[in-house]
Amino acid sequence: MTDLKSQIEDFGRRARAAARVLARTSAEQKNQGLLAMADEIVAAAPSILEANAKDVAKATAEGLSKAMIDRLTLDTKRLEAMADGIRQVAALPDPVGEQIRDWTRPNGLRISKVRVPIGVVGIIYESRPNVTSDAAVLCTKTGNATILRGGSESIHSNVAIAAALSRGAAKAGLPEDSVLLIPTTDREAVKHLCAMDKYLDVIVPRGGKGLIETVVSHARMPVIKHYDGICIIYVDKEADLAMAENIVLNAKCQRPGVCNAIETVLVHRDIADQFFATTGKALLERNVEIRGDDATRAALGDKAKAATPEDYRTEFLDLIIASKVVGGVGEAIDHIELNGSHHSDGIVTANEQTAERFLAEVDSATVYWNASTRFTDGGEFGFGAEIGISTDKLHARGPMALEELTTYKYLLRGTGQIRN
Amino acid sequence: MTDLKSQIEDFGRRARAAARVLARTSAEQKNQGLLAMADEIVAAAPSILEANAKDVAKATAEGLSKAMIDRLTLDTKRLEAMADGIRQVAALPDPVGEQIRDWTRPNGLRISKVRVPIGVVGIIYESRPNVTSDAAVLCTKTGNATILRGGSESIHSNVAIAAALSRGAAKAGLPEDSVLLIPTTDREAVKHLCAMDKYLDVIVPRGGKGLIETVVSHARMPVIKHYDGICIIYVDKEADLAMAENIVLNAKCQRPGVCNAIETVLVHRDIADQFFATTGKALLERNVEIRGDDATRAALGDKAKAATPEDYRTEFLDLIIASKVVGGVGEAIDHIELNGSHHSDGIVTANEQTAERFLAEVDSATVYWNASTRFTDGGEFGFGAEIGISTDKLHARGPMALEELTTYKYLLRGTGQIRN
Repeated sequence: MTDLKSQIEDFGRRARAAARVLARTSAEQKNQGLLAMADEIVAAAPSILEANAKDVAKATAEGLSKAMIDRLTLDTKRLEAMADGIRQVAALPDPVGEQIRDWTRPNGLRISKVRVPIGVVGIIYESRPNVTSDAAVLCTKTGNATILRGGSESIHSNVAIAAALSRGAAKAGLPEDSVLLIPTTDREAVKHLCAMDKYLDVIVPRGGKGLIETVVSHARMPVIKHYDGICIIYVDKEADLAMAENIVLNAKCQRPGVCNAIETVLVHRDIADQFFATTGKALLERNVEIRGDDATRAALGDKAKAATPEDYRTEFLDLIIASKVVGGVGEAIDHIELNGSHHSDGIVTANEQTAERFLAEVDSATVYWNASTRFTDGGEFGFGAEIGISTDKLHARGPMALEELTTYKYLLRGTGQIRN
Repeated sequence: MTDLKSQIEDFGRRARAAARVLARTSAEQKNQGLLAMADEIVAAAPSILEANAKDVAKATAEGLSKAMIDRLTLDTKRLEAMADGIRQVAALPDPVGEQIRDWTRPNGLRISKVRVPIGVVGIIYESRPNVTSDAAVLCTKTGNATILRGGSESIHSNVAIAAALSRGAAKAGLPEDSVLLIPTTDREAVKHLCAMDKYLDVIVPRGGKGLIETVVSHARMPVIKHYDGICIIYVDKEADLAMAENIVLNAKCQRPGVCNAIETVLVHRDIADQFFATTGKALLERNVEIRGDDATRAALGDKAKAATPEDYRTEFLDLIIASKVVGGVGEAIDHIELNGSHHSDGIVTANEQTAERFLAEVDSATVYWNASTRFTDGGEFGFGAEIGISTDKLHARGPMALEELTTYKYLLRGTGQIRN
């Protein structure tokens, strides 16, 4: 345990030193580094696939689900895609160095607010080995050093991928320690990381509730959580019901296992019968289980199960939807504020005033009017890449992309000004 | 203990409800509320001064220092100043509602990034009762509800001031719970606050290291720390030495007890003799104790004490300065990165290239070229008011003013877009 602690502190020191170098590295040099990382992923394919085979064999022996094993498995094509992903990040504009604001005080002091890297970013994640590459290269792009801690299922793959990224960085003259991966599955490692506020500027947990809870309880540094998405759509009495059906079906069924899919639909009582007769039927036809309140069940009969209060606070990540009939936009907003996870919520209505009230009063990272919540995504926002969707309110809210991997500092240029 | 916990949770619930109302309150209404708060402070002067007299009597009986008692003591003039401070905040522009960015995606989806209140802000502070008003009104201005927890020395004053602010808010139609003060000095209250991430969106500790350490160890929500300022000025070989003397004397002596005063001066060896013969002498004449390395002492003789490594990492907050002779800007940057607190650091030099390297490589909230570090202040930055100086890197860095009391959300307006 003490050995693990000092090993992780050593990682911290090395990452901090690498971060200092990365912070003064030009965009061009960083991009050269990223291209070299991509090449090295391809060149190291044999060793990465060999390592991956060990993880897959273990997962198979342990009887993991087919879906899990598929997420874990790498092949040459997936490694090529990983390398292409890195090259795409290299081609994005570098936010570092941007002058956010610039003004001169009456005493002649010039103040510039400029965008700088955060420093050392810790990323804790589960299962999929490509997160190792995705997360690390976004940090490198923005001049941050990264300490990665992946899930135990993909430990061999992660070690091999991180080693390739480090070699690539070094070949292009970036610090080898730009990307560090904790090569142990010891759970105490997470706690040691969380205690290391001297070296780690922020920690980003991506994974299940248990993991995030551990990080929140122990972290001394800022945490940017990627919690669950209990996303809700409210279908107003003035909704275009064909549009509402399109949106609800898309938000629920297109990919139910992701955080920006909806879990609940709220329906205005004036259009509830029509809505359930059309969209309700369409949901059932797509094998969506509907868990509704009395009014929903009055419309759908025993085709809808009875919803418990807990159903309205559950991220099903499956073909299940909670349904509730409400009296108006105010009641919908109250329901969302009390039950939602402040991730992505929407209204379908033709009434602009109702929509603007909803947009103003729903306190979520992304609030929609007449569109599917599935657009909460760095790519769909036009950010080019994302490290995830933050459910936190501070620093990064919603899609967390390159800009959210930076912070700022103030530069003050004077001519001898002193304070009286 | 359970009673205290449920009492604080009740505060949390009430603050959250107030925050929802404040978030949809117009700038004009909030300003009316602030003006009513100012009036109420003046109207309630008799009861506030009576409460304050209890605190002062207790402090006197306990033998607190004259300076402490002075900071604690209120009189009619100070209450008038407090009310004037509130009126000044009312006159500032409201950052809430600002459209930070706005763009339309190829699919026609319009995305707006807009500035919104954070929600519920917890502020934990020590001693001075006017922080109760200063902090609360900045939060009200930005549409946040505030839960305050002041120091035990000023508990009676704080309760009376917060009650006046609540009454003022209510008279102008803002929620009475916009400003809540925890009316107990029980230390467990801080821990309960720190656990309440359901209701508290951020916690801002202002005070000594012990207090901040308690908050950092227990908080489950984001913390914006106002830690110590170990600020450093480097006098380069190409410095205008008269300018350097002005700046160093100002930064050390004008108000040594504040966080943006310097604690260390680094001097290039090529101009060290000259510097110590003039500025060194001037510091000694102002009764500044110099703790230097061997080279400093070679120049100043026994007028300088020997510095320990700890002296370079100490916030003296007094007429004491650590001094070290360095070989160049690189060594100065290394010293600052390893010993400073990343608050405010400066270089004095006539060489622009050297200055720009220093500005780029020093990773502090504010980095100065040819000016005193004493300008790290919301007022001096032109922000109108500040809640403090953040030594954190994320969300708020450096002077934390109205804008830093807000966050953002994304509004997406569509015409039925769904994701393929």
